[in-house]
Amino acid sequence: MRQSKLLGKTRKEAPKDEEARNAQLLIRAGYVHKEMAGAYAFLPLGWNVIKKIEQIIREEMDAVGGQEMHLTALQNKASWEASNRWDDQVLDVWFKTQLQAGGEVGLATTHEEPLTNLLTDHIASHRDLPTYAYQIQTKFRNELRAKSGLLRGREFRMKDLYSFSKTEEEHQEFYEKAKQAYKNVFDRLGIGERTYLTFASGGSFAEFSHEFQMVTEAGEDTIYVDEEKGIAINEEVYNDEVLEKLGLKKENLKEVKATEVGNIFSLGTRFSLPLKLMYKDEAGEPQPVVMGSYGIGSSRLIGAISEALADEKGLSWPRAISPFDIHLIQLQDEVKEDAESLYNKLTEKGYSVLLDDRDKSAGEKFADSDLIGISKRVVVGKRGIENGTYEVTDRSTGETADMKEEDVCQI
Amino acid sequence: MRQSKLLGKTRKEAPKDEEARNAQLLIRAGYVHKEMAGAYAFLPLGWNVIKKIEQIIREEMDAVGGQEMHLTALQNKASWEASNRWDDQVLDVWFKTQLQAGGEVGLATTHEEPLTNLLTDHIASHRDLPTYAYQIQTKFRNELRAKSGLLRGREFRMKDLYSFSKTEEEHQEFYEKAKQAYKNVFDRLGIGERTYLTFASGGSFAEFSHEFQMVTEAGEDTIYVDEEKGIAINEEVYNDEVLEKLGLKKENLKEVKATEVGNIFSLGTRFSLPLKLMYKDEAGEPQPVVMGSYGIGSSRLIGAISEALADEKGLSWPRAISPFDIHLIQLQDEVKEDAESLYNKLTEKGYSVLLDDRDKSAGEKFADSDLIGISKRVVVGKRGIENGTYEVTDRSTGETADMKEEDVCQI
Repeated sequence: MRQSKLLGKTRKEAPKDEEARNAQLLIRAGYVHKEMAGAYAFLPLGWNVIKKIEQIIREEMDAVGGQEMHLTALQNKASWEASNRWDDQVLDVWFKTQLQAGGEVGLATTHEEPLTNLLTDHIASHRDLPTYAYQIQTKFRNELRAKSGLLRGREFRMKDLYSFSKTEEEHQEFYEKAKQAYKNVFDRLGIGERTYLTFASGGSFAEFSHEFQMVTEAGEDTIYVDEEKGIAINEEVYNDEVLEKLGLKKENLKEVKATEVGNIFSLGTRFSLPLKLMYKDEAGEPQPVVMGSYGIGSSRLIGAISEALADEKGLSWPRAISPFDIHLIQLQDEVKEDAESLYNKLTEKGYSVLLDDRDKSAGEKFADSDLIGISKRVVVGKRGIENGTYEVTDRSTGETADMKEEDVCQI
Repeated sequence: MRQSKLLGKTRKEAPKDEEARNAQLLIRAGYVHKEMAGAYAFLPLGWNVIKKIEQIIREEMDAVGGQEMHLTALQNKASWEASNRWDDQVLDVWFKTQLQAGGEVGLATTHEEPLTNLLTDHIASHRDLPTYAYQIQTKFRNELRAKSGLLRGREFRMKDLYSFSKTEEEHQEFYEKAKQAYKNVFDRLGIGERTYLTFASGGSFAEFSHEFQMVTEAGEDTIYVDEEKGIAINEEVYNDEVLEKLGLKKENLKEVKATEVGNIFSLGTRFSLPLKLMYKDEAGEPQPVVMGSYGIGSSRLIGAISEALADEKGLSWPRAISPFDIHLIQLQDEVKEDAESLYNKLTEKGYSVLLDDRDKSAGEKFADSDLIGISKRVVVGKRGIENGTYEVTDRSTGETADMKEEDVCQI
């Protein structure tokens, strides 16, 4: 992709009404456009990152047997009345609207009810279980306030997986697998080292739920981390009794700020009983299905990662989700052909490359490159060409090296 | 994928309230679930088809320089008031809802206004043009009646591309390229031979717009096809004057039923003027951007293709969008290991395979296989195993052959 043609220009200032640092950075770097508070459009750079995040999540969900589906945003009142979540007093983030043909519908903020209802057509016997369904799509939350940029949207993208098991024991088996799948996701996204499985309140369904918290000074939550054991406790359940139960010692815990990047819940029969999702066990007796739900917000992740990894110069993407593999900077007009030639070679090798072919000063190009934050930068300049080398810089470490072409083709 | 684990069972009857043949078939075969009239959830089989359709469209849009983005579903009143399309009298399929924080928002049925508005941040000079943006996502239409199944949804998936050009001439150049890209899409989907570029009314923007109409007895539209020239006219513009203008002769035209599967429009400055999307030309003078829009509904396509290609036994997918490459039928318990072994070999070769490992009679398996309509069926049966062969059937032609393993691995 030639940067002169890229839809999405960098800008010096974010809009004045944008308070969140993640959105300020993503807007300035040309990744997103603020449509309204809590609703952001993704420009090509931002959409590239979202697609990469979602593909990693998809692969890990497939690996634990998840089957991808796509439920509707428009929600039927009846299923939600059955579970008592249609009422705005109970679920207070509904967007509701009217069909012209008559009748009220809602916009989905989650999909336990419609999926549980749908599966009554497809689950009948113990032979149909366990089963796991997931989707990656847009959801809606009518937030009263939306000041956290991409971290808490009125419209946002997420992956939600739901598990359906015969028994609590079978559920727990998958729940442990899901934990590992989530660890894999965060490792592959490049934030594994700073992301902790965190014990949090289980609500009315279970003693604990589990969050995945990414440590960052910009975090909204406070957690207590046991670095050696690689787990943490959310402050909401941080007390002596819980510490003892989890075998954690106060003196080994470090208080840090963190942002939630995923969560998993045991739901028991909270939805299967009211919505009548039953199966016949081996004795032919009807039993309620035991459920779990497992969320990761992909648009929340782009916000959280951009804010956590940015420095004073701009964004800095982990390699796996960088919008392009390489930012190739053509420093002067005179090296245009050299830059084009390297661009073609790298593209043929399978790298995705953003070529800065714009008619701008070196200073502007470097500043934009730092702001955009592609994980590797390769500079084509007159002096390098004379020596047969290119300057290669890693955005996150700042390490720079002069490399020959054959080495650039292997970064 | 083992069919015993597949989320989505076949059923003998479609729901009584479902009138559309496409939806009846897709529900019976386990591809979709009717959430409400005009809103269908995609089960894994259906979502596989949608993903394949959308990937083909994506590749062809990328090939003509389209840049993928993702705009918001939630719509700001202001942009639509500027173009005079916020009013329900003007655009009569709005879903509108209220923000808890105050203010009315709409759900997007198309994205000319927000995209035009967004691009005022990114287009300033003639050097920024031409440019092409597209997205593949969910849209909403508050239809008064929704009785056509997947063909006309209240919630549906589509690709919409928008072109932004300096002049009418530059616009026409891309418009011709887009025609070719659309032809490529329909060829690759497997419906190229029955899909015609069709002259239709251009509305208030241009003399003609162009539809792509797929010939099918189930079609809602009537078109007049010149098979030799490979083009058609929609009956809405079928008159002597237009025939003469297009150099078509009545005696060469055949009246047929067809379904619209794509359309392209010249928009002129209809949106750029009211929304102030201007660029400075080489003389520094401000000029309005010349626009076009190009739509293909992926959920409409799954409906149209399923209905057009189905026979009395069920669905029949073109190979490129078949939910799996091969439906592998394990005919008896005794050949379980043979079936598993072939399944593994085919999977290793890169085929996607649905293995019917269910405890059902041969008759039930064949009936389900015909209903589901995967493009190739491979049967593993006792008699074949004795002879070292497998029965391979093409779903669309019905042709059957006994093949050795090495040949099955190359179908």
